[in-house]
Amino acid sequence: MEHRIPVAVLAATGSVGQRFVSLLDRHPWFEVVAVTGSDRSVGRPYGEACRWVLTDPMPETVRGLTVQPTTPEAAQFPLVFSALPSATAKEVEPLFARAGSCVCSNASAYRRDSDVPLLLPEVNPDHISLVSAQRRNHGWRGCIVTNPNCTSTGLTVALKALDETFGVQRGFVVSLQALSGAGYPGVASLDIIDNAIPFIGDEEEKVEWEPRKMLGQLDGDAVSLADFTLSAHTNRVAVSDGHLVCLSVELEKKTTPEEAVAALRGYCAPELSARLPSAPDPVIVVRDEPDRPQPRLDRMTGQGMTTVVGRVRPDPLFDLKMVILSHNTIRGAAGGSIYNAELLASLGLI
Amino acid sequence: MEHRIPVAVLAATGSVGQRFVSLLDRHPWFEVVAVTGSDRSVGRPYGEACRWVLTDPMPETVRGLTVQPTTPEAAQFPLVFSALPSATAKEVEPLFARAGSCVCSNASAYRRDSDVPLLLPEVNPDHISLVSAQRRNHGWRGCIVTNPNCTSTGLTVALKALDETFGVQRGFVVSLQALSGAGYPGVASLDIIDNAIPFIGDEEEKVEWEPRKMLGQLDGDAVSLADFTLSAHTNRVAVSDGHLVCLSVELEKKTTPEEAVAALRGYCAPELSARLPSAPDPVIVVRDEPDRPQPRLDRMTGQGMTTVVGRVRPDPLFDLKMVILSHNTIRGAAGGSIYNAELLASLGLI
Amino acid sequence: MEHRIPVAVLAATGSVGQRFVSLLDRHPWFEVVAVTGSDRSVGRPYGEACRWVLTDPMPETVRGLTVQPTTPEAAQFPLVFSALPSATAKEVEPLFARAGSCVCSNASAYRRDSDVPLLLPEVNPDHISLVSAQRRNHGWRGCIVTNPNCTSTGLTVALKALDETFGVQRGFVVSLQALSGAGYPGVASLDIIDNAIPFIGDEEEKVEWEPRKMLGQLDGDAVSLADFTLSAHTNRVAVSDGHLVCLSVELEKKTTPEEAVAALRGYCAPELSARLPSAPDPVIVVRDEPDRPQPRLDRMTGQGMTTVVGRVRPDPLFDLKMVILSHNTIRGAAGGSIYNAELLASLGLI
Amino acid sequence: MEHRIPVAVLAATGSVGQRFVSLLDRHPWFEVVAVTGSDRSVGRPYGEACRWVLTDPMPETVRGLTVQPTTPEAAQFPLVFSALPSATAKEVEPLFARAGSCVCSNASAYRRDSDVPLLLPEVNPDHISLVSAQRRNHGWRGCIVTNPNCTSTGLTVALKALDETFGVQRGFVVSLQALSGAGYPGVASLDIIDNAIPFIGDEEEKVEWEPRKMLGQLDGDAVSLADFTLSAHTNRVAVSDGHLVCLSVELEKKTTPEEAVAALRGYCAPELSARLPSAPDPVIVVRDEPDRPQPRLDRMTGQGMTTVVGRVRPDPLFDLKMVILSHNTIRGAAGGSIYNAELLASLGLI
Repeated sequence: MEHRIPVAVLAATGSVGQRFVSLLDRHPWFEVVAVTGSDRSVGRPYGEACRWVLTDPMPETVRGLTVQPTTPEAAQFPLVFSALPSATAKEVEPLFARAGSCVCSNASAYRRDSDVPLLLPEVNPDHISLVSAQRRNHGWRGCIVTNPNCTSTGLTVALKALDETFGVQRGFVVSLQALSGAGYPGVASLDIIDNAIPFIGDEEEKVEWEPRKMLGQLDGDAVSLADFTLSAHTNRVAVSDGHLVCLSVELEKKTTPEEAVAALRGYCAPELSARLPSAPDPVIVVRDEPDRPQPRLDRMTGQGMTTVVGRVRPDPLFDLKMVILSHNTIRGAAGGSIYNAELLASLGLI
Repeated sequence: MEHRIPVAVLAATGSVGQRFVSLLDRHPWFEVVAVTGSDRSVGRPYGEACRWVLTDPMPETVRGLTVQPTTPEAAQFPLVFSALPSATAKEVEPLFARAGSCVCSNASAYRRDSDVPLLLPEVNPDHISLVSAQRRNHGWRGCIVTNPNCTSTGLTVALKALDETFGVQRGFVVSLQALSGAGYPGVASLDIIDNAIPFIGDEEEKVEWEPRKMLGQLDGDAVSLADFTLSAHTNRVAVSDGHLVCLSVELEKKTTPEEAVAALRGYCAPELSARLPSAPDPVIVVRDEPDRPQPRLDRMTGQGMTTVVGRVRPDPLFDLKMVILSHNTIRGAAGGSIYNAELLASLGLI
Repeated sequence: MEHRIPVAVLAATGSVGQRFVSLLDRHPWFEVVAVTGSDRSVGRPYGEACRWVLTDPMPETVRGLTVQPTTPEAAQFPLVFSALPSATAKEVEPLFARAGSCVCSNASAYRRDSDVPLLLPEVNPDHISLVSAQRRNHGWRGCIVTNPNCTSTGLTVALKALDETFGVQRGFVVSLQALSGAGYPGVASLDIIDNAIPFIGDEEEKVEWEPRKMLGQLDGDAVSLADFTLSAHTNRVAVSDGHLVCLSVELEKKTTPEEAVAALRGYCAPELSARLPSAPDPVIVVRDEPDRPQPRLDRMTGQGMTTVVGRVRPDPLFDLKMVILSHNTIRGAAGGSIYNAELLASLGLI
Repeated sequence: MEHRIPVAVLAATGSVGQRFVSLLDRHPWFEVVAVTGSDRSVGRPYGEACRWVLTDPMPETVRGLTVQPTTPEAAQFPLVFSALPSATAKEVEPLFARAGSCVCSNASAYRRDSDVPLLLPEVNPDHISLVSAQRRNHGWRGCIVTNPNCTSTGLTVALKALDETFGVQRGFVVSLQALSGAGYPGVASLDIIDNAIPFIGDEEEKVEWEPRKMLGQLDGDAVSLADFTLSAHTNRVAVSDGHLVCLSVELEKKTTPEEAVAALRGYCAPELSARLPSAPDPVIVVRDEPDRPQPRLDRMTGQGMTTVVGRVRPDPLFDLKMVILSHNTIRGAAGGSIYNAELLASLGLI
């Protein structure tokens, strides 16, 4: 950890920003040397400006960092992690890329751009090659690399394992999503106590589209979307962390729950990404109990990077039903961006 | 209310039993004159034997009733409401029917019997005619009439309105179910705080099958199941009352969300059941807000008897997505049984 | 209800404002004809501007009212109810009083002013006479009348009943307060799920001081504070409505729990206030069960206006321990202000 | 870890039993080689018999252990940890002690016996010497050593630090207690959702008495109770783990909050217990933020063994107010018993 790459976290005071700061503490390759925030926070020590909401304590090393404005001038580093809201990300991330930073972004702003990789290293690490096209297209020294929406994440990992072996044709997806997915302060307590909310803005569109890009074929300088259709309902429930997804999936090749479990358990990350520091180990855990996975009990599996599947069973309309759990602010947000950055670094792209 | 029909509530100390007692307080036709309970409660005053969990206070009229054993000898009345667990119901309900009682049961024990009506009066009141076959088959003076599982209830009401106009072909159903559905003490608090449980025993089978019986055609002395297929995932969430259902439905006749909303709003109960005391008014409310229905805000719509629908929108795989809410211990349990009893009474069958 | 007094609700879109609107629906004496809100809401129909968070539906009569700015010009009525935040109340309420409105305020801004009544009609209705001094001092035609902090409310009602019979000398007060006390959006869900917060800003000072003014002696144009001392700890817990208070109290005249219960049960509101429309009936309910009162089960006692006491028992340090529950947005906020207005109206002061 | 002491956990399938099993995994001195349970579990593998409720996964090493009956014959080891309910503990623990086992018990059954140490090693390790008297009195080779009630635990640690420097005279104690304190299944979810319960059976007596024994003077073969009085109210709130205590304390020597904070922060465990494997480090953390400690954020401080104090401020009746947090199933239960066992082992008493 002598010569770690100095990194900045953009929008470091929010809930995903805090997760970045927490996960990067003692990271073997990266070292947080700058944090940025909104006008209200700029100029104050991070330890004061930030209302820390994680149960792990704030790392001592960042407590004294002065919060910077979110501009390339104030935070010019070879690698920056973006926890920016989408509208700000839209404006600011290209400025960083142009100034030479590799932006590993959790924002949705550029996920659909044809030359921007939407990346889960255990699923589609080869899509990283879009970075070359991106640099060529824009004349950037840096780049923008995105990770998917938190609900798309675990879903896509499970779909990948199934697709590889059986071919995915159609899927129904209904989520029970955690509160931390809405950021902080996010959902008002009065809105969720003794309640569930069957709506999350702009979420269903992402869940229906993003897996198709990630499971799509790299085709020169672009990705052709995978040829399956998803239908999503997204719901908010009174859970702090951990998104549950109920999936009914239709497959090309007929199979049994047992074979599907074997395929899920047997799924390994590609060579490129399997041994990176944040690589989930294993990629997928399948639980045998009838009532698992559950967010409180299973979200920290594999330090929050493993996708947990359970209740694999026949579906009377499609082929299989199952339940998927993924930690939404670790695997589904900050941890995912860090894993992406590790892939970039391992390939010499930073 | 001078000459109300005297009724007994079987298993009156449990959570559904309490709902019966509460809803029957000041009922215009029925009067609770006896309550039964388990050995632990028999012989004690109801007010002491029962750990009351409803927010409405216990009616004064039942407080002093001595809890009776659940036998026809101890509780022989023309009408009894059964909140019995399924295994006990299996044994005991026929004894009451044989002894001359009309048993309006919330238990699942006899829902699948061909000569037992599975009844939602606003949906299939004509199925009540199975009672004649039942009496004939068994030589009973009484009868058993059942209401469906709490999750099937709101779902079936919405499907009925859609089926009538457009024809239902297939449906995906994912529930977010309230704690009271598991009875009392039911779900341990440690199992549900900061958690959701993607499993409810024997529930998915009921949700996939029961709507087909209720929307089936009465065919002499039996019902032929409706010709559609449902696939269900059922989940428990930290909500006290009110089951949410996410539905994706495929229809025979293609339609728009606007037409579907019109059909749902326009749905009326048949003549037979539309003006009974517990008839929901209206049968279905469709909310226009993007984030409704919600359990805490909408479960008491129409005094808990109305089915609330929202988020009617196109589905990329089937035709329509929507969300359905129904109060699980009122419309979905005790209130439903009472509504069934009103239908029986109005037809002179008690 | 033919000739009801037209009233405005200031800050009607917030959570206490909504409670005013809800409780005033079908009020026999008052009719909401105007609502005010912040810049963001002004000019929009109330039904759109307001994110309704109550479980009772929004009254149809207010849905179409255009939200007005909070100025005497825009909302000049003989009676206005103020749900304003304290800083705004400080500025704006005197403008309304000067313009001729009786301001029944839930804000803390003027509670400590010597000529402003801090009023619980079932406790100290005679303090209403401060209005004359207030009008004289300021040359106002209107006036400002305040109700206490929500946690002070139930506590003061119980202390009054004890003080009258036994004399209160000292008290320890620890609250478990509901989320709605913090307004909307108020407490972030991530801050309270699986958590309790042992701090509420500026609350302990109010709880320690306000009961002393309300139980103080009216002394010409001012009130001399009651001669007892309270010590308060205030906590936030995951409850929607209903503040619990644990009280240990030292009395001048030694007594038994049984006598104390008798005094609490026997407490009646003074003549002046006992028959007003919102008068709690009874003022105090004492529950005998070992584990009551509980917020979810008991907060709506007496339509949310009754103070519920339980667990009256000896205290090893002082004399008695007990638990007190009061509905914080009904008796402790909007309902209390309305009760105050009824007292004003009954005395011809509006 | 070559030659660890083999230990049994009595009542290992319950929630405290599970905590024992989890905390003893990889313990440097002790190794779980046997687990006992009720008739329902005996003979089954632990991994099947036990419904695991902790978020840390079940240690692999115990999964295959066959659950034994709770008798000395079935589980005769030099050291046993007891998570038995009090009534069973009353009967069974002496049998183990007679058979030669040192019983480190979390049960309340023998806490008040004059020759049984009630022990917090960082507070009163010298009380361990009661073991000699106990062995003499009963002719046992083993012994019974108890840890206090979970709410007494953090309270006593804080009182000890204050008592040493300032002398404690009187204290008001109000708890907000976590669900895990009631065991599993314990509190029904319907009883605690949107609710708080101001009652925990037999708890207040323990909280008022136990600290006096632990802070009492060892006097030959018995302990003379400390000469102060406590008054307790105990409440259950919707928190999984971590008991909060609001304390108002009267001291002999007047002091300031600053001096009290210094005394709390400066408190060190006695030599005897300071370097044992489970010794909290530090014993007490005092937080400076106005709204801490909070259960979700602070319960795992010092791996759940540290007592966290906050909000130290003047009290208008006594001297100081403060808030104390302690992890109820770690420091307040299983972790405390293990720390006691380490003290026994370090003194050669096992």
